Amino acid sequence: METYKVIEIKESVFADNNREADRIRASLKREKTFLLNLMSSPGSGKTTTLLRTIEALKGELRMGVMEADIDSDVDAAAVANAGVRSIQLHTGGMCHLDAGMTEQGLKELGTADLDLVVLENVGNLVCPAEFDTGAVKNAMILSVPEGHDKPLKYPLIFTVCDVLLINKIDVLPYFDFDLEKVREYAHMRNPRLKIFPVSARTGEGVDAWTDWLKAQVRDWT
Amino acid sequence: METYKVIEIKESVFADNNREADRIRASLKREKTFLLNLMSSPGSGKTTTLLRTIEALKGELRMGVMEADIDSDVDAAAVANAGVRSIQLHTGGMCHLDAGMTEQGLKELGTADLDLVVLENVGNLVCPAEFDTGAVKNAMILSVPEGHDKPLKYPLIFTVCDVLLINKIDVLPYFDFDLEKVREYAHMRNPRLKIFPVSARTGEGVDAWTDWLKAQVRDWT
Repeated sequence: METYKVIEIKESVFADNNREADRIRASLKREKTFLLNLMSSPGSGKTTTLLRTIEALKGELRMGVMEADIDSDVDAAAVANAGVRSIQLHTGGMCHLDAGMTEQGLKELGTADLDLVVLENVGNLVCPAEFDTGAVKNAMILSVPEGHDKPLKYPLIFTVCDVLLINKIDVLPYFDFDLEKVREYAHMRNPRLKIFPVSARTGEGVDAWTDWLKAQVRDWT
Repeated sequence: METYKVIEIKESVFADNNREADRIRASLKREKTFLLNLMSSPGSGKTTTLLRTIEALKGELRMGVMEADIDSDVDAAAVANAGVRSIQLHTGGMCHLDAGMTEQGLKELGTADLDLVVLENVGNLVCPAEFDTGAVKNAMILSVPEGHDKPLKYPLIFTVCDVLLINKIDVLPYFDFDLEKVREYAHMRNPRLKIFPVSARTGEGVDAWTDWLKAQVRDWT
């Protein structure tokens, strides 16, 4: 009985959230700003990948970054050092961002003069996948040490993402990770998922990913 | 206004959950069964660590395992192969287990003839930390590839855990991971946290961990 009650509340939260996310996208379209929602487990390399992406694109696109974290400003400081406007969103224990929190962040950051805003979501494969943030595209990172079975265990996030970065391919020799299997499992969840193997540490494969992202931004703006 | 409403519901959920968790612990105490709640990010090596733990303890303790997963039976099958009674709990999208779900699992597994039950929680550093499952002790795994900054970013889970396993120490040479820093950060969150560096793959350090666990079970039963 209690469980049923919680589910009803959750459904109304989702409906409100989806409407708000659609409003955010419409407003971003008018402003010609592209919002990317970047999700992964803790420690998959979201911030390092973001720093590589900034390095590749900041000469061509006007970028901004929103760093969501439960606590700490480590990531926002790193991004600010890379010369990109950034803000830190503290979720205060919340396990994901919803559209309302994203909208507050966008207002705080100021997006009128930006082509591309990246939202680095809370490190979590479960809850962030359930909430549309208003992003134009959803990206996720799965790193080699996490294992190739993750699409079997965390199906929703692979379904809602447009693009998957397989990060830390520089350590492939030290792990039992099968790149072909992860492609197969991920495409079972989402046949249209774009997949880029990269190493944010060495830079390998990063060009293919940033070229794809640039094309998406051009299409939108 | 909406946010406030959600928080109130959450608080009442927590209060109910805590009462239920206390009831579970009292019942486990009467039955002389120890329940360990094992938490970590996706891909930190919960199942591999559990298999090593089973290997070390199954001659001395009567063990059972509850595998919580959003979807898939991969882990329960692996544990069953190791010769231990196990059940798979499908959370149907839920990001954590609460006391009610744990109680259902314990009933299904049957605990009267068991000394030690391990609950492998959903791979997530955020939500599982918020819900007391009724476990006697909480354990978490942080693996080397995830980085030593995790206690700064995911504070609650380090606070609620009794023991931290630093897993995958066999790949320390390939990552910028500082074992001293992680100890310092983790103890900032929780000065009483026991820390065991291990490699579930090679078996290194596993004895110290299983000795500690055995002593906890003896204290309780």
